[in-house]
Amino acid sequence: MKEVKIGLIGFGTIGTGMVKTIFQNREWIKNRTGIDLNLVKIADIDIKREREVKVSEDLLTTDAYEIINDPSIDIVVELVGGTTVAKQFIIDSIRNGKAVVTANKALLAEHGEEIFRLSREKGIPIAFEASVGGGIPIIKAMRESYAANHISRIAGIVNGTCNYILTTMEKEGKDFREVLAEAQKNGYAEADPSLDIDGGDSAHKLAILAMLAFGKRVNLKEIYVEGISRITPLDIKFASDLHYRIKLLAIAREREDGVELRVHPAMVPEEHLLAKIDGVYNAIYLEGDIVGPNLLYGQGAGMMATASAVVADIIDLARKIDYPRVEEDFVKCDGDLNIIPIEKHVSPFYLRFQVVDKPGVLAKIAGILGDHDISIASMIQPERREGESVPIVIITHESVEGNLIKAIEKIDKLDIIRAKPRS
Amino acid sequence: MKEVKIGLIGFGTIGTGMVKTIFQNREWIKNRTGIDLNLVKIADIDIKREREVKVSEDLLTTDAYEIINDPSIDIVVELVGGTTVAKQFIIDSIRNGKAVVTANKALLAEHGEEIFRLSREKGIPIAFEASVGGGIPIIKAMRESYAANHISRIAGIVNGTCNYILTTMEKEGKDFREVLAEAQKNGYAEADPSLDIDGGDSAHKLAILAMLAFGKRVNLKEIYVEGISRITPLDIKFASDLHYRIKLLAIAREREDGVELRVHPAMVPEEHLLAKIDGVYNAIYLEGDIVGPNLLYGQGAGMMATASAVVADIIDLARKIDYPRVEEDFVKCDGDLNIIPIEKHVSPFYLRFQVVDKPGVLAKIAGILGDHDISIASMIQPERREGESVPIVIITHESVEGNLIKAIEKIDKLDIIRAKPRS
Repeated sequence: MKEVKIGLIGFGTIGTGMVKTIFQNREWIKNRTGIDLNLVKIADIDIKREREVKVSEDLLTTDAYEIINDPSIDIVVELVGGTTVAKQFIIDSIRNGKAVVTANKALLAEHGEEIFRLSREKGIPIAFEASVGGGIPIIKAMRESYAANHISRIAGIVNGTCNYILTTMEKEGKDFREVLAEAQKNGYAEADPSLDIDGGDSAHKLAILAMLAFGKRVNLKEIYVEGISRITPLDIKFASDLHYRIKLLAIAREREDGVELRVHPAMVPEEHLLAKIDGVYNAIYLEGDIVGPNLLYGQGAGMMATASAVVADIIDLARKIDYPRVEEDFVKCDGDLNIIPIEKHVSPFYLRFQVVDKPGVLAKIAGILGDHDISIASMIQPERREGESVPIVIITHESVEGNLIKAIEKIDKLDIIRAKPRS
Repeated sequence: MKEVKIGLIGFGTIGTGMVKTIFQNREWIKNRTGIDLNLVKIADIDIKREREVKVSEDLLTTDAYEIINDPSIDIVVELVGGTTVAKQFIIDSIRNGKAVVTANKALLAEHGEEIFRLSREKGIPIAFEASVGGGIPIIKAMRESYAANHISRIAGIVNGTCNYILTTMEKEGKDFREVLAEAQKNGYAEADPSLDIDGGDSAHKLAILAMLAFGKRVNLKEIYVEGISRITPLDIKFASDLHYRIKLLAIAREREDGVELRVHPAMVPEEHLLAKIDGVYNAIYLEGDIVGPNLLYGQGAGMMATASAVVADIIDLARKIDYPRVEEDFVKCDGDLNIIPIEKHVSPFYLRFQVVDKPGVLAKIAGILGDHDISIASMIQPERREGESVPIVIITHESVEGNLIKAIEKIDKLDIIRAKPRS
């Protein structure tokens, strides 16, 4: 039996879930793993507020450094979030020789290299399963289960809020703003939803996954990011007519000349498993050169699902606490990942133009696309009209994004409005 | 850098995949994990046959004990299969202090407790990711990622051959025998397919998953097993009409009075992810009390996918080779799992009767079901007739299987033929 002393910094939703999990399953975990999780201190700026779990008052402090500087504590769990104090807490914990568990994707996406370098220098591991996909074991799978593989492709639905909104728009035919407002009311979207709906949160998670897959530093700013706010019920309907579903995907795709990294609404063929991930659920699809395609699915957020990952990390670190380290205990970030600029990405595209309904318009659009080396795979021009304009939907063959951008600039000058989910 | 010396026993399909993987990705693995996989010996009864990978002759031997008794070898990989010599190889390897990797589900299902007990006594770990779901990281997920959870429910598509046959029957409307013959021709089914199609292979995998989920010994003989050979295209059509798909599931379900363990064709609601797993793919769905529902998907068999799991296990054992052990390194098998006999299982049922088309038959059937406390949820009596008889399909509400068995015995005496996939 190995007792491990844990300090928690950040007693919010996930922190509460972690405490509940330990209180509820401590004996079971001890029996199964031989590790006794002893939560000795909880720090939060607000220790008065009622939580879903009742803890003894002498466990609580408002001073995180009562944990970080306590020599008896083995593992620090950082669930504060954000990239300022959380960063300092983690750095100081590592410096003090404490293994760290965090769910902080923004911090790892922005400052991962610095933190991982320090972790390696000090020989102190940091675990972060909860940073991507809630309770889905994607981080461990990538670090350990797929360790024999080169991973060449990742496509993830990693933001539950966006997936919930898109699923609801599809099922109820409502428009984006209306569903977002409902989601905010139901607690599926934040009061300030921009990090979710603009794709920033998905980009953070993609940066972490790409770092693990390719073993290189990922410059977050080089990830192309497009959110879901421009998707209309009409796009969803056209996608459905063409046997696609629209999902916000975080995509990494290795090419000979580098890696495409992008977050955007994508047309997913309806027979693909990713098309079938509904509501707040997450799924990460990937392809390894040995294992082939794999997909991992589960709740991507939420108090308990995320806590499951946090506690698994604690158990993992606890068992290794006195072990000699090997390379695999640390995250590799050697050199910069060669991220291909968006202009050079290659994929099929979905284009919707709202055009004036008069002869010759379609020929003009097709002509401009052709001039830019973009060929049309299929097209819908539905009967119904909206005022005096009609929508035209075009799916292209694989095209270079830079060409598409130029073509659309020209088409836009024809007084045509576009909407652009892509696959 | 940590070099680990590996001996492989069994140079068949998976063994070949493992060797290919190490040859192909050894540098990459070394760079990523800090572990250098040095394959020093391969034993097989046939060392003359051409394989997909070329190995130096002095690596080969026909004597497994050249590996088992070689003091320089750290890890023995057993890929012989079967429950006779393979068992002895594993036992002798553990006795000689060598960590073991195996893909042998039949052996672990039948003699797991004995092997795991020895492993614990000797402090020598055994890894078996490849025994269930090929390259899908389900074993590691259950042992480590879901370590904070009580797992209360598992439903897995864990036999690619059966799933391929059912998918093909569905897509092409062909009958079981015809599709099986094709599958044998294509290499998707063995010459003797009984272990797959009768559900025995799925039962082996279920036994392993249940052992991990509940930490108890599982008596393989107590698992209810029913294969797919009685499924007809008509069943598949009726299922589809009712918005279900028929899948061979391996199910574990915890109840207050014990655990239901069963393998049988099941009606899966078409919106459930398991309904969408096609062809030779596998998926394991599970529910934890903390993590909620998770699903892991990938190729459940095949040379390279399975090799991915074998090599991941080798890396895992290699990194831990000199570490002090903790409880989690071993598999718990304390006491017998309380497996509920099939008569007491509770679920909805699908029943198809072929009845003589005359008045009063349906009333008789409904009457007998009612007498046995089985209520009807929905019913189809299609127009089309086969000769002089017509099919009737009934979906019941949740019913006790023992009652159903008795009811069907009585109905059978009415000169009625049944076919019985169930959910």
